[in-house]
Amino acid sequence: MPAVATFVMDVDIGYALTSVASPGISRDNLQRLDERVAAAHERIETGRANHEHGYEALNLPAQVDPEEIRTAVEPVADAEALITIGIGGSALGAKTITDALASDLETAYLDNVDPAWVSQQVNGLPLEETAINVVSKSGTTAETLANFLVVREIFEEAGVDWTERTIVTTGSSGPLASLSESHDLPRLPVPDGVPGRFSAISPVGLVAGAIGGVDIEALLAGAAAEADSLTGSLFDCPAYAYGAITYALDKRGAGMNAMMPYVEALDTFSEWYAQLWAESLGKDGLGQTPLRALGVTDQHSQLQLYRAGPRDKMVTFVHTEEIEDRAIPETDIEDLSYLGGATLGELLTAEFEATEASLAVENRPSVRIELEAINAFELGGLLYGMEAACVLAGELYGIEAFDQPAVEWGKKAARGLLGGGDFEEAAAVAEKTTLRIEH
Amino acid sequence: MPAVATFVMDVDIGYALTSVASPGISRDNLQRLDERVAAAHERIETGRANHEHGYEALNLPAQVDPEEIRTAVEPVADAEALITIGIGGSALGAKTITDALASDLETAYLDNVDPAWVSQQVNGLPLEETAINVVSKSGTTAETLANFLVVREIFEEAGVDWTERTIVTTGSSGPLASLSESHDLPRLPVPDGVPGRFSAISPVGLVAGAIGGVDIEALLAGAAAEADSLTGSLFDCPAYAYGAITYALDKRGAGMNAMMPYVEALDTFSEWYAQLWAESLGKDGLGQTPLRALGVTDQHSQLQLYRAGPRDKMVTFVHTEEIEDRAIPETDIEDLSYLGGATLGELLTAEFEATEASLAVENRPSVRIELEAINAFELGGLLYGMEAACVLAGELYGIEAFDQPAVEWGKKAARGLLGGGDFEEAAAVAEKTTLRIEH
Repeated sequence: MPAVATFVMDVDIGYALTSVASPGISRDNLQRLDERVAAAHERIETGRANHEHGYEALNLPAQVDPEEIRTAVEPVADAEALITIGIGGSALGAKTITDALASDLETAYLDNVDPAWVSQQVNGLPLEETAINVVSKSGTTAETLANFLVVREIFEEAGVDWTERTIVTTGSSGPLASLSESHDLPRLPVPDGVPGRFSAISPVGLVAGAIGGVDIEALLAGAAAEADSLTGSLFDCPAYAYGAITYALDKRGAGMNAMMPYVEALDTFSEWYAQLWAESLGKDGLGQTPLRALGVTDQHSQLQLYRAGPRDKMVTFVHTEEIEDRAIPETDIEDLSYLGGATLGELLTAEFEATEASLAVENRPSVRIELEAINAFELGGLLYGMEAACVLAGELYGIEAFDQPAVEWGKKAARGLLGGGDFEEAAAVAEKTTLRIEH
Repeated sequence: MPAVATFVMDVDIGYALTSVASPGISRDNLQRLDERVAAAHERIETGRANHEHGYEALNLPAQVDPEEIRTAVEPVADAEALITIGIGGSALGAKTITDALASDLETAYLDNVDPAWVSQQVNGLPLEETAINVVSKSGTTAETLANFLVVREIFEEAGVDWTERTIVTTGSSGPLASLSESHDLPRLPVPDGVPGRFSAISPVGLVAGAIGGVDIEALLAGAAAEADSLTGSLFDCPAYAYGAITYALDKRGAGMNAMMPYVEALDTFSEWYAQLWAESLGKDGLGQTPLRALGVTDQHSQLQLYRAGPRDKMVTFVHTEEIEDRAIPETDIEDLSYLGGATLGELLTAEFEATEASLAVENRPSVRIELEAINAFELGGLLYGMEAACVLAGELYGIEAFDQPAVEWGKKAARGLLGGGDFEEAAAVAEKTTLRIEH
């Protein structure tokens, strides 16, 4: 654990209180909610102790062996580029980690099957210096396997041996597990009992980081530190404070939650959060809709709506105390003289504080997540903390946070449409109601 | 105009009707709404004829001279890379165009002031082969000017003359206009009467495209074709059909609209749309919140929520009829044999149709925008069509779609915090209400 880390993820909910915000929660009702947090914490701890499906995700920091990952990636540890083939939870955790911490590694995440785009992503890479990481728990995900077949073909056409540079992360059986055996590929496990969107702090997320030079040991240490912070009161536990406040504000009318980090390195984190929130909590007509924003950029795009539109959303700011800074050169342009002598970081911070206050003076709720810096330790804590927050919110909503039943219909329909079996869902596609407006 | 183009932007609203969807609109009420569309069209045409602020955006296709743009960019027409310095509407239109159509040009869009990120964006570029495009209507946008000062410094430190490769797009006066004169830089106008988010089809959006080899003449022709389609009935005008249906569904409970193209080339288009919608319509407690999604990727992230969460959203699919395709290689893996012989494009289409149907069987509203292909003509039509849809929606809501008053408070506060004058807004920042949860 780096000696510099004094905290992982602090949460400030002052601007979500009724004294400032509408919707908001009063201090009295926050106390009432805390009793439910205590009960939910008990339930979560029981789930963890019994290794129940989903709850098991919160045990990962103590279970994941970074040495196993280091060994598996050893043949490609000096790769210049990495193609990760996976979709949803098999891509977003890894992408969050490398986008935040591995800027020297060229990465392609094949999480879509757009043909022109897939070719484009791969064609620019130095294939002889490129590693392949294919990730699918079942080993049968259609998009992932199709892309893997295509990537293999591209390598073969270029005369580059893909079997020497491919790592497989998959469950204990299935086509990818068989393939790793028949081709003698390094294989890492997708942990049991952990849904994909909760698997960032496992080989699913860490393989890419390890290849990209990320200190995955520190990332696990940050996650472990955050795990230690879980207690039965939202007033003592930042992660639970975050989960509880988002639940409370959703119930009071903030059906949307805009994740707005003031740091580019966390832009992909917002996408990861959006999957975590949407797929875990979007059930039975419930669930807060995640919005992905970015400071300062979206001040010039989404802020007008956040500040003057319907009172149906909250904003979550993510701010880091320390940043690598750069001075703004002096200028003789009179209108801009106030910028000269300042730094880009000071401008960023001023914009952040101004935006946060601008919502508060309009009584719009916001929450601030404060990190010390962008590094592996802090990111590990942030990812773990958000997962714990989400699990807590699932308990408060009273829903099963660890499945995603609503997406099965479409998977069957697509498979039927491609001739992969006789699915009644495919027939429904042909019955489309059409009212087409043409010119 | 390319001979192949048979249509620009068709819109299918069949899955937004009450016969399928809830919320939805009945055919009878669609007829009633069409009377308001006719009146709104009259108002819009009057605004266009009188060159009123904002409405003027819909006159751009006939006003913009591509030759003027070609001449201005001539000194850097063979640049390998382009740094665009601008934020909000000064970046997103250009980025939408180059991300969709100029894959050979390396681009950096400096639309944020995160110091480490700014350095990273610029440092990897071949500066001697890099053009700079600085865009600000007022010439005083703090983030843009700060970044411009930094980029100049980086070029100077590298011994590369930035004055030989910089194009300025700005209003008729202000610091950037003065600068272009003192350094003899090519200057292009930001059109009068056109808010930034409506300026994609002007030098603001087209300079980057021209440098990236985009057929900007075809893009303007597509926009002009779409302009010709504006009529007084939503049943004859795809753009108005789209604006009217989003308004009607918002009023009936779909307070969110997820833009979900099934084509990677339009991923940035969703960001552009999100600004257009949020900043134009988010006023007086009104406005539909834009969500940015992507098919098939977000089937594995957001679809669970869209299909099983609250009935508070609609989905807009964008689908292209023609794509560049690629076969999925045959495989001897039994579970995947249905993929062999298919193409990635067939998989993409099957997933699109399955997802659209999967929402409909759960009575969730969606709208389909159909393009013929991804090319300059179609993109010009799409951008113009969405702008017209947004202007129409503004009329139906009865709000001023062309200003963004809610962001001014924060701008003043930030300027005050940086010492750029005595603004009372800055004082409010110090009064922050805090309830910080720490571990």
